[in-house]
Amino acid sequence: MKRPALLIIDMQNDFVREGKPLRVAGSGKVIPKIQAVLAEFRSRSLPVFHILRVHRPDGSDVEIIRQELFRRQPFAVAGTSGAAIIHELAPLEGEYILTKTRMSAFIGTELGLMLGNLGVTNLVVCGIQTPNCIRTTVFDGIAYNYPVVLVDDATGAASEEVHQANIRDMENIGVKIVTAADLAGILDAR
Amino acid sequence: MKRPALLIIDMQNDFVREGKPLRVAGSGKVIPKIQAVLAEFRSRSLPVFHILRVHRPDGSDVEIIRQELFRRQPFAVAGTSGAAIIHELAPLEGEYILTKTRMSAFIGTELGLMLGNLGVTNLVVCGIQTPNCIRTTVFDGIAYNYPVVLVDDATGAASEEVHQANIRDMENIGVKIVTAADLAGILDAR
Repeated sequence: MKRPALLIIDMQNDFVREGKPLRVAGSGKVIPKIQAVLAEFRSRSLPVFHILRVHRPDGSDVEIIRQELFRRQPFAVAGTSGAAIIHELAPLEGEYILTKTRMSAFIGTELGLMLGNLGVTNLVVCGIQTPNCIRTTVFDGIAYNYPVVLVDDATGAASEEVHQANIRDMENIGVKIVTAADLAGILDAR
Repeated sequence: MKRPALLIIDMQNDFVREGKPLRVAGSGKVIPKIQAVLAEFRSRSLPVFHILRVHRPDGSDVEIIRQELFRRQPFAVAGTSGAAIIHELAPLEGEYILTKTRMSAFIGTELGLMLGNLGVTNLVVCGIQTPNCIRTTVFDGIAYNYPVVLVDDATGAASEEVHQANIRDMENIGVKIVTAADLAGILDAR
């Protein structure tokens, strides 16, 4: 790959930690896999984006389907520990933090502009959760002409069945599905 | 519903007719259901969008994942009968025809602008195929704050299993899943 960028999506306390109301069941087991993926990008000094859902406390930027939920139980509120990246994946200096208010990391964000600025040629995606923020970002990446690699075991959903059904659909449109262990070889392939 | 618009997606000869290389297996059985949905919108003089994939003959507007396929086997080429809407769903005067080059009807099109112009408050979606053009359009509709109704039996995919897995994911984010027979009551609900 010429110049891949890593997108780590929504690995925030409100979506990962035990006991949080919006916890994604499959989020815990992916942490060590994302750490391995991140280490490969860091060792090659390739661009890393930590992509986070962050909302204003008044909920004015929450999508229509979640406004009622947000009123009852605010989540990923700017400035709270719930909105923070989990400490296991803390960003290093030089890595990009990008906040979003929708599922796709391309909607209402500077992601597309920054990928252009940085000369990125390929996207590697991981995080949570597979049918929503992961899949919308992957499909938008394809729409904007970036070949996408999805790291299967570094991506989690509410259930394994939902995860697998979405992996199949992404594979069907030409997304490359790999494991964290495969990644070094893929990054080094020319 | 205050002012719903109907989006009929990709019901073109190249994707529907027997023997066409890119035919979607589930496209035939949805035709009478889409006719029923269309009749409900027409009888109420509500906005109807016929949304079509249309490509330039040189393929310069084809997404990265399909460029090789398009070179081998061009599809939905502007001006060909393959790109035309199937005759069973021929547009009437006053209905909108909108062409796209990506899966989502919101990417690179005037759809978002026109929905605003027309004062549309809700989207009703049908056509082909469920995991790709349907789902990306539905998720983008939600992202842009339109409550979405998906007409299950007027929407088709390559297999029933893929269709159902995608219906479940859409229902999980708050998309209203209905049948063509339900639609009159839903359109008239205040």
